[in-house]
Amino acid sequence: MDTIVVMKAGATPEDVQRVVDRVQELGLTPHPSRGEFRTIVGAIGKRTPPMQEQLEQLPGVDEVMAITQPYKLASREFHEADTILDVKGIRIGGPHVNIIAGPCAIESREVLFDVAREVKAAGAAILRGGAFKPRSSPYSFQGMGREGLEYLKEAGDELGMPTITEITDPRDVDIVCEYADILQIGARNMQNFNLLLEVGKTNKPIFIKRGLAASITELLMSAEYVLSQGNHRVILCERGIRTFSEDVRFTLDVSAVPVIQERSHLPVFVDPSHAAGKRDLVPALALAGIAAGASGAIVEVHSCPDRALCDGPQAVLPDNFRKLMEKIQQVAEVVGHRVTLWGREDSSPRRSAVGGWAT
Amino acid sequence: MDTIVVMKAGATPEDVQRVVDRVQELGLTPHPSRGEFRTIVGAIGKRTPPMQEQLEQLPGVDEVMAITQPYKLASREFHEADTILDVKGIRIGGPHVNIIAGPCAIESREVLFDVAREVKAAGAAILRGGAFKPRSSPYSFQGMGREGLEYLKEAGDELGMPTITEITDPRDVDIVCEYADILQIGARNMQNFNLLLEVGKTNKPIFIKRGLAASITELLMSAEYVLSQGNHRVILCERGIRTFSEDVRFTLDVSAVPVIQERSHLPVFVDPSHAAGKRDLVPALALAGIAAGASGAIVEVHSCPDRALCDGPQAVLPDNFRKLMEKIQQVAEVVGHRVTLWGREDSSPRRSAVGGWAT
Amino acid sequence: MDTIVVMKAGATPEDVQRVVDRVQELGLTPHPSRGEFRTIVGAIGKRTPPMQEQLEQLPGVDEVMAITQPYKLASREFHEADTILDVKGIRIGGPHVNIIAGPCAIESREVLFDVAREVKAAGAAILRGGAFKPRSSPYSFQGMGREGLEYLKEAGDELGMPTITEITDPRDVDIVCEYADILQIGARNMQNFNLLLEVGKTNKPIFIKRGLAASITELLMSAEYVLSQGNHRVILCERGIRTFSEDVRFTLDVSAVPVIQERSHLPVFVDPSHAAGKRDLVPALALAGIAAGASGAIVEVHSCPDRALCDGPQAVLPDNFRKLMEKIQQVAEVVGHRVTLWGREDSSPRRSAVGGWAT
Amino acid sequence: MDTIVVMKAGATPEDVQRVVDRVQELGLTPHPSRGEFRTIVGAIGKRTPPMQEQLEQLPGVDEVMAITQPYKLASREFHEADTILDVKGIRIGGPHVNIIAGPCAIESREVLFDVAREVKAAGAAILRGGAFKPRSSPYSFQGMGREGLEYLKEAGDELGMPTITEITDPRDVDIVCEYADILQIGARNMQNFNLLLEVGKTNKPIFIKRGLAASITELLMSAEYVLSQGNHRVILCERGIRTFSEDVRFTLDVSAVPVIQERSHLPVFVDPSHAAGKRDLVPALALAGIAAGASGAIVEVHSCPDRALCDGPQAVLPDNFRKLMEKIQQVAEVVGHRVTLWGREDSSPRRSAVGGWAT
Repeated sequence: MDTIVVMKAGATPEDVQRVVDRVQELGLTPHPSRGEFRTIVGAIGKRTPPMQEQLEQLPGVDEVMAITQPYKLASREFHEADTILDVKGIRIGGPHVNIIAGPCAIESREVLFDVAREVKAAGAAILRGGAFKPRSSPYSFQGMGREGLEYLKEAGDELGMPTITEITDPRDVDIVCEYADILQIGARNMQNFNLLLEVGKTNKPIFIKRGLAASITELLMSAEYVLSQGNHRVILCERGIRTFSEDVRFTLDVSAVPVIQERSHLPVFVDPSHAAGKRDLVPALALAGIAAGASGAIVEVHSCPDRALCDGPQAVLPDNFRKLMEKIQQVAEVVGHRVTLWGREDSSPRRSAVGGWAT
Repeated sequence: MDTIVVMKAGATPEDVQRVVDRVQELGLTPHPSRGEFRTIVGAIGKRTPPMQEQLEQLPGVDEVMAITQPYKLASREFHEADTILDVKGIRIGGPHVNIIAGPCAIESREVLFDVAREVKAAGAAILRGGAFKPRSSPYSFQGMGREGLEYLKEAGDELGMPTITEITDPRDVDIVCEYADILQIGARNMQNFNLLLEVGKTNKPIFIKRGLAASITELLMSAEYVLSQGNHRVILCERGIRTFSEDVRFTLDVSAVPVIQERSHLPVFVDPSHAAGKRDLVPALALAGIAAGASGAIVEVHSCPDRALCDGPQAVLPDNFRKLMEKIQQVAEVVGHRVTLWGREDSSPRRSAVGGWAT
Repeated sequence: MDTIVVMKAGATPEDVQRVVDRVQELGLTPHPSRGEFRTIVGAIGKRTPPMQEQLEQLPGVDEVMAITQPYKLASREFHEADTILDVKGIRIGGPHVNIIAGPCAIESREVLFDVAREVKAAGAAILRGGAFKPRSSPYSFQGMGREGLEYLKEAGDELGMPTITEITDPRDVDIVCEYADILQIGARNMQNFNLLLEVGKTNKPIFIKRGLAASITELLMSAEYVLSQGNHRVILCERGIRTFSEDVRFTLDVSAVPVIQERSHLPVFVDPSHAAGKRDLVPALALAGIAAGASGAIVEVHSCPDRALCDGPQAVLPDNFRKLMEKIQQVAEVVGHRVTLWGREDSSPRRSAVGGWAT
Repeated sequence: MDTIVVMKAGATPEDVQRVVDRVQELGLTPHPSRGEFRTIVGAIGKRTPPMQEQLEQLPGVDEVMAITQPYKLASREFHEADTILDVKGIRIGGPHVNIIAGPCAIESREVLFDVAREVKAAGAAILRGGAFKPRSSPYSFQGMGREGLEYLKEAGDELGMPTITEITDPRDVDIVCEYADILQIGARNMQNFNLLLEVGKTNKPIFIKRGLAASITELLMSAEYVLSQGNHRVILCERGIRTFSEDVRFTLDVSAVPVIQERSHLPVFVDPSHAAGKRDLVPALALAGIAAGASGAIVEVHSCPDRALCDGPQAVLPDNFRKLMEKIQQVAEVVGHRVTLWGREDSSPRRSAVGGWAT
């Protein structure tokens, strides 16, 4: 059982150093993590009762907590309420359901804008599009790189939608941060720890997809890598696991949604597109995820999927996406959630006033 | 590609014999299957164009069809519309959503009646209760046997609910048929082919749970074993598959619902209780299944789960079951389905007038 | 932690009844199991120190033991030394390596005798052949039934080889016992508990294959079902588990061999044929199993596999089987084991003089 | 079906450009890959008969081949004979069996030298030791970094053993290449494609571990990423896959050894230590892998495993490693292989004279 020392918002570097020193004197290993708003000092090692009191008395210390889970900052023990992020005025997490939509890969300015307008009209809140594509074959289309990022930013700006794109290399952090609002860590990189550390040093929300054979604990440990660097804005995503089943590409583990929510305060999304691998199955899986309580879904939409350079067979057509959005809205309401309808007239999201470092 | 010859309802045994003989002359292996209403003759072997015509001309032949799937009578190719069963006036399948509820095992007359009244009041249509329990340990409670079946029949009769119970041994077919309305084949017996053949000879609906490592094709092949004996009333159930995940007992594969519906006309249910293994997860999984389009769910409910002799931790309390039923109703409506509310005043199921052998 | 009371070989029914009564008075549930040589009384429930003493003093009691595992009679705690069975003079288990070989299904007298002579000449100790075949399709060849059993017995008698065949239905126990020396429970029936109870009442060795998604504990619990009925001659077999891998039919879990040996005293075999599903992989998997310490392997051999009615692609040709036998012998020696070469001149198995009920 | 154009060793850049241009004119996408010795041009797209002839006639072209597999350079179709690498005079691949041994992580100079001497004396050919450790928790020991690499190089030089260490970040390529002889890509980075591309540009052999849920095809595609950059020295390693089994950490898929060998010319190793997660199981799994035909094994050895900072429970003690090496030698001989006994007097490896670019 380890200890976490949460510093006050106004704590000075000297206050932090004093805690670090005392933790060391107590025979524990200190892990200071400087966030945007506050600093946390993890004290890894065996805990004793006097320790708690001694640390609480130090100047600048707000709270001292014991954490039994291997993940600390990601756990419900550490942060009881649901974390709700604010991304350009859109609230993500808890009862706020957000749909991320767009093409798998950015293929051209035209197709991207085309799809972006469609998904916005249907009610999607966030625009997705891949510029660096991790492909299992070195001979497949690998993405448009910086040019794709430029189009994505342009489309997001023009339509007023926050954007998300995948990052696969720690050397790309600067360029991706320049263009996108949310950084996605794909399933294949869920345990690329150097990449996680690197994005943990940015101030962008990080959207982490569960690895195809990762346990919930491993997913939360990957979130912990980001959180431990001071970036407290993490979103998790169930995207299907690899099982014996040959009937779908991956098996969407809907139970991951309530299981993660029980253990962690972080928002949980589902990705029905990559799980199904086939557009006909996407609506059923998207609705299942929302019914299970997910705070959102990420859906691949393409206006001309048979010409898509990547994952065409799983992209939903705009018309079907619109119908799906309506059902998502209704199912969300049944479970007490509410879909952010950014682009639709009946919706006027207010800039949220959520404070505190963890949001 | 094999051939199926569907005989007319009024075909005589001589008509059938003539088809069998001709199939043999054509160099194929005949598989006559005498159903309650009609007889089918499978003709396994390579198909030639003249064959079709020759068979169609024989007296008593209604239709001659080619089937590409390994399962024949279970396939959508064979029967395009959703099969809708009628069990004591309740319609099962297609848009009709039925909730089966009750205790895991029948432990006493009192507890069974207690739970039965609760689930009926909440809107469950069918009563479940196990009398022969397959347990992984020979030292665990193995069920009450015939005494349990008597209580189940009594409760079903008194409350006007059809009943379902598990059968695990071909030697128990007579006794179980005497007491229960629907026979359940558990996941562990999904490929107990002799048991399938035996229940295929009864006139009771058969509820087959997917084995914990069975593919969809294997599940449909098990249905085919029942169908091939002339019993055309089969219901399928996704109950969670075994994966690497240690976070739940089994991983509910919601994608199985639309995948089965694409390939087969048979009704598909989900079992959130055995998948979750933990009552807190049951509502999320039940709603996910209904949102994915299932024609029903089978839920374990117990008024005093900490004293249950079997699977107590996964039994939902009556109060929570009532709340779940309300949400199930609403989610079913979103996807165009309708819950049978047998015991509730706002519902008046009519005896269905579905005809034809396949229903 | 439960308790096992082992009665002396000469204990009377009255002695046993006295133990049963006392166990009940102590608030535990008694599970008497009458074996060929001795009776065991399981006392399931919380153990207290005085209990041990009280039970030890009763007449006819040999030993009173605490068992922490869910499986009792199958555990190493209960029986520390390797169990070594004697089947018609052949020793099975521990350092004795036996190869079981023959066709998947018995298709004709001629083919069976043909293959039987080949495998005997190559050094196989036991002859296999299926008469009741569990097939995933009701339209596939289901085995020759009693006629097949007659041929198997005839071949075994003529060549002096013990025989093994699969049993799939509790109603077939008498007929199969009449003809075969070892009864096989297939992977699909590993948790067909009624079948296990039924074969537990016979005096034939039972060869249980691991279910394709069964844990080691579940496999040992299935063995416990047989052991609990008084039949103490059980052999276990790893035959491949179902994983995400599409590169083989099933993934042979070689680690099951040392894991089972650590927890149980029962002999462990491997089945490379069903795991591989492809004859080219059989030698590598068979050798891997023997190198991992297995007490034997069951290998499908066919003189004309392209005409086999069942599982032809995985049957090894006689010539290759002979070469494989030589390597198996050498690998077995490296790990301190010795192959029974029943039919070869350089081998003269003696009738073993192993006594005691557990062998 | 794609096409591969192999250029002659002496082909000029102009020759290559001419092929690239012609491939484009033919409507295909060219993928030139400049290797140390030769250049290869992949021509991805539909193949026609005249194409073959046209390309064969161009100056500098050695061979034009059709490849049906998604992996090209990694396939047996492309290179029929086993690839045999030469690393500091040690031959790796085909019948040459090499054992890599050492501690999981480099913890101190002293422990490393201690273990290195032990494993060399026992017959290990290559020394392993991790300096950058990918750990699931950000709070665990992350390796000694450059200091660790220095010790590893020093130990390798002093004992005359080639060394292998893991690389986890594309930015570490230069430093790791400076110190180690073989670069290891861990299971979690098997699909870190940027890292694969980066190591593909070095001239060091790359040891790629199979991801814990990767198919054989995906493993070979990852090899293809390295090969496509011109680095033709790749070794593959089966290290256990994630299955439902909770009885071992990972399930060693021994069938991967013959399956890979059938499809690819690259050497295949097994990693019994990470699969087992428990030292008692390591010998059985190591022998199983060698019996299945692997060209080597990578084994964790520690002189004081209870004080190891990483994966202590799976480290074998030096004494047991010595006994294991003897059995490995004998099993290797049974399957026609031969263990390189680098450090032992009875062995005198000669510098191999293997030529050609693929070795």
